[in-house]
Amino acid sequence: MSITVYNTLIRKKVPFNTIEPGRVRMYVCGPTVYDHAHIGHGKLYISMDMILRYLRYTGLDVLYVQNITDVGHLLDSGEDRIMKGARREQTDPMQVVERYMRSYMDDMDALHNIRPDIMPRAAGHVPEQIAAVEQLIKNGNAYEVNGSVYFDVSSFPEYGKLSGRKIEELQEGTRLNTRAEKRRPEDFALWKRADPEHIMRWNSPWGEGFPGWHIECTAMAIKYLGANFDIHGGGLENVFPHNECEIAQSEALSGETFANFWLHAGSLTVSGVKMSKSLGNSVTIQDALNEYPAEVIRMFVLSSHYRSPIDYSKEAVDAAYKGWQRLIGPALSVQQILLTTQESDAAQSNFSSTIKQTRDDFKTAMDDDFNAPKAIACLFDFAKDVNGLLSEYPRPDDATLQSIAEVYNDLAGTVLGLLPANSTTSVNRDNELIEILVDLRKTARKQKDFATSDAIRDKLATIGVILEDGQSGTTWKTGFSNLSE
Amino acid sequence: MSITVYNTLIRKKVPFNTIEPGRVRMYVCGPTVYDHAHIGHGKLYISMDMILRYLRYTGLDVLYVQNITDVGHLLDSGEDRIMKGARREQTDPMQVVERYMRSYMDDMDALHNIRPDIMPRAAGHVPEQIAAVEQLIKNGNAYEVNGSVYFDVSSFPEYGKLSGRKIEELQEGTRLNTRAEKRRPEDFALWKRADPEHIMRWNSPWGEGFPGWHIECTAMAIKYLGANFDIHGGGLENVFPHNECEIAQSEALSGETFANFWLHAGSLTVSGVKMSKSLGNSVTIQDALNEYPAEVIRMFVLSSHYRSPIDYSKEAVDAAYKGWQRLIGPALSVQQILLTTQESDAAQSNFSSTIKQTRDDFKTAMDDDFNAPKAIACLFDFAKDVNGLLSEYPRPDDATLQSIAEVYNDLAGTVLGLLPANSTTSVNRDNELIEILVDLRKTARKQKDFATSDAIRDKLATIGVILEDGQSGTTWKTGFSNLSE
Repeated sequence: MSITVYNTLIRKKVPFNTIEPGRVRMYVCGPTVYDHAHIGHGKLYISMDMILRYLRYTGLDVLYVQNITDVGHLLDSGEDRIMKGARREQTDPMQVVERYMRSYMDDMDALHNIRPDIMPRAAGHVPEQIAAVEQLIKNGNAYEVNGSVYFDVSSFPEYGKLSGRKIEELQEGTRLNTRAEKRRPEDFALWKRADPEHIMRWNSPWGEGFPGWHIECTAMAIKYLGANFDIHGGGLENVFPHNECEIAQSEALSGETFANFWLHAGSLTVSGVKMSKSLGNSVTIQDALNEYPAEVIRMFVLSSHYRSPIDYSKEAVDAAYKGWQRLIGPALSVQQILLTTQESDAAQSNFSSTIKQTRDDFKTAMDDDFNAPKAIACLFDFAKDVNGLLSEYPRPDDATLQSIAEVYNDLAGTVLGLLPANSTTSVNRDNELIEILVDLRKTARKQKDFATSDAIRDKLATIGVILEDGQSGTTWKTGFSNLSE
Repeated sequence: MSITVYNTLIRKKVPFNTIEPGRVRMYVCGPTVYDHAHIGHGKLYISMDMILRYLRYTGLDVLYVQNITDVGHLLDSGEDRIMKGARREQTDPMQVVERYMRSYMDDMDALHNIRPDIMPRAAGHVPEQIAAVEQLIKNGNAYEVNGSVYFDVSSFPEYGKLSGRKIEELQEGTRLNTRAEKRRPEDFALWKRADPEHIMRWNSPWGEGFPGWHIECTAMAIKYLGANFDIHGGGLENVFPHNECEIAQSEALSGETFANFWLHAGSLTVSGVKMSKSLGNSVTIQDALNEYPAEVIRMFVLSSHYRSPIDYSKEAVDAAYKGWQRLIGPALSVQQILLTTQESDAAQSNFSSTIKQTRDDFKTAMDDDFNAPKAIACLFDFAKDVNGLLSEYPRPDDATLQSIAEVYNDLAGTVLGLLPANSTTSVNRDNELIEILVDLRKTARKQKDFATSDAIRDKLATIGVILEDGQSGTTWKTGFSNLSE
């Protein structure tokens, strides 16, 4: 295989190889579903989706597992995030999970991220987590105190190998509010005793409680991918403690290397500032999708290397929008020309070398730790070449046009997900289509063609789209329900 | 409360009342996700959705739980349906679950069925099921044999109360292929020992195995709704054995009445014949949605009483389509008129009695065991009245128009889900919008307005919609990927 990847575990770029020939088993840490996903999640999962798409494009059979965290991920205050959501919405924790899991799924579909093959839920895998904790106690890596079970960090000498942190450093930095019952401050919880007011609780050999956050990924990754698998992906902010703890538990449990390759996506800031609810600068994926087409958000994310941090701002995404239009423009021209029956010019056999070069350069870029920005640069060069061809030969031969279309389909579409149709679900073009009709109606009215302008208004009304002509032009809204407001 | 419902448990219509004032806890058996959902599922879940919508419309706070069966629902051959799907698709059972659960969710969204508040999965509730089985053994209602646990039907004297079957009859009809280890042929499995080749397995006090089908609904309903809740809904074909077994287990377990009201939807045939894969007459929800708008499928389903069987045929759904257009026609007219600034005629105060009468009649119909066909008949009468009004007064006063719109929004929209915008997710109007544009282009070409016809084609191309002019008119396809085929 010619792919090299930056493996966080050894902090360098190395050749990628798979455990089983032709097959990749890949795990990515999923979201904690207690609120709508934000554009930082968008950045992470578009990055992982691009990696998945490229691996599959090269012919690898990828089994892609991404979990849903619906229990055990606590806030610094010790409160479970799901229960915080339940308190906020005065509802049952599992209603919170249902609502935001579906919202997350909707967002991922809308961003054209390919659906994971399996999305296991932490609360749905309590027996597997309990079994893992029992085994860790047996192996001498964990101990029980007062109905909680902790991982004994000193029992796993390699603890710190992913993040590069040393136990001595950790001790100094450990928060003061940790339970005094732990043997060492840096030990972490595998199972927690449930206080009486804690609703989300299960029976266990240690009494009623709930699993710690880290153990879910160990239990579910091993269940669906085996003790040793190929790729573990996630956000850079989860390297410590989450991924570090996953490694310690999993390897202490099975004696095998957990994931061979650790791939981490850089974080996202908004206008230079870390996103946070308290700052009020949080941008949800839905917010972003109200402003921009999904392809533009993908273009924005993929224009930086997945490991780099990026900054979300109106200027940056607007620039990505312009770039995207420039990138796919020639694809649209080619489509148009292919539909005309006009006689073609002589064969442009020399363009086939451009096509080959583009594919080669694209592959070289992507093989090099999934360098999407470099791959996009290849496509910009290609767009320029296609424009040049078309200005010289207004009607190239069909074979050349087909080859160009294939380059776009494969590279911009299948691999990067930048073409409108290359999504797993049908694209919702409502807004664009309505805008086209509003424009046509405007033109008709200018030309005093009121038959046409009225026909457009009436036909739109029959499908629930209501046009309103106001001072500053025509606006529209959908739905009967607006009528009686 | 003025609602009466037909309660399968006592085989008569009785006043509906709730356990907690103003609050309804409702459970509906969900699908076994090993293939795409068919139009029979569509019929069932549209019926239950209509009941949910009406209860909420009357001001009741409904907690709606619908499970996902992803383990334990066996075929007559003894094979788990999920494992059959996995064998068919040469994949992991949980990939099958993921794929068809998402497909089911997509279908339900497309049909405008309101999302359940909680969709618990059977495989995610194994500890709860094991705990229930342990308690049943303790209570003397179940026994273990060779690692499997069976419910002792003779220990629950009321067994048969839902379906009206007597144990003596059951014994005669029992299939021959039941395990000989059961004490009586009519006893049913709560937990099954897993054969070595059975992949879906969990540890239990009785060795490795998996839960029986019925116990999941007991465990999950009790977990999320309590031992005694208001409504249990499902398909008529599940009364026996599934619902009957649920009652026996649950009431033996808790000593309380399980569900107070049992509501069952009638079945669906296709052109007079029971739908089945082997007959090749299976119609998926996706098939139906390719033929008809979701609102028309709802209109078709709701035009018969939910307890009645219905027959799906082209003629029947076409008739529903015509009916639906007739029904919502006046709503569209009213929308149009409300947008005009024309001076209104004198107030039509007498129409307010028609509006009141319509709302009253609609309520009377729906209060009577959710008689949607009768409620739709009220709306047909109303449509006729509105048409009559509009032919007499081309521009009624705004207050009257608003009241008409409100009737449509509330009754046709909120309660029955027959108005395009009254869905939980945004409606995908792509096809309708593209057809409008294709028609406009056709008109422009007839009028030799090629500037307009080309503009329409070009603008559509920029959003990935390709028009093709052929012998028999213009067809269209979406997506760049079609280009290079």
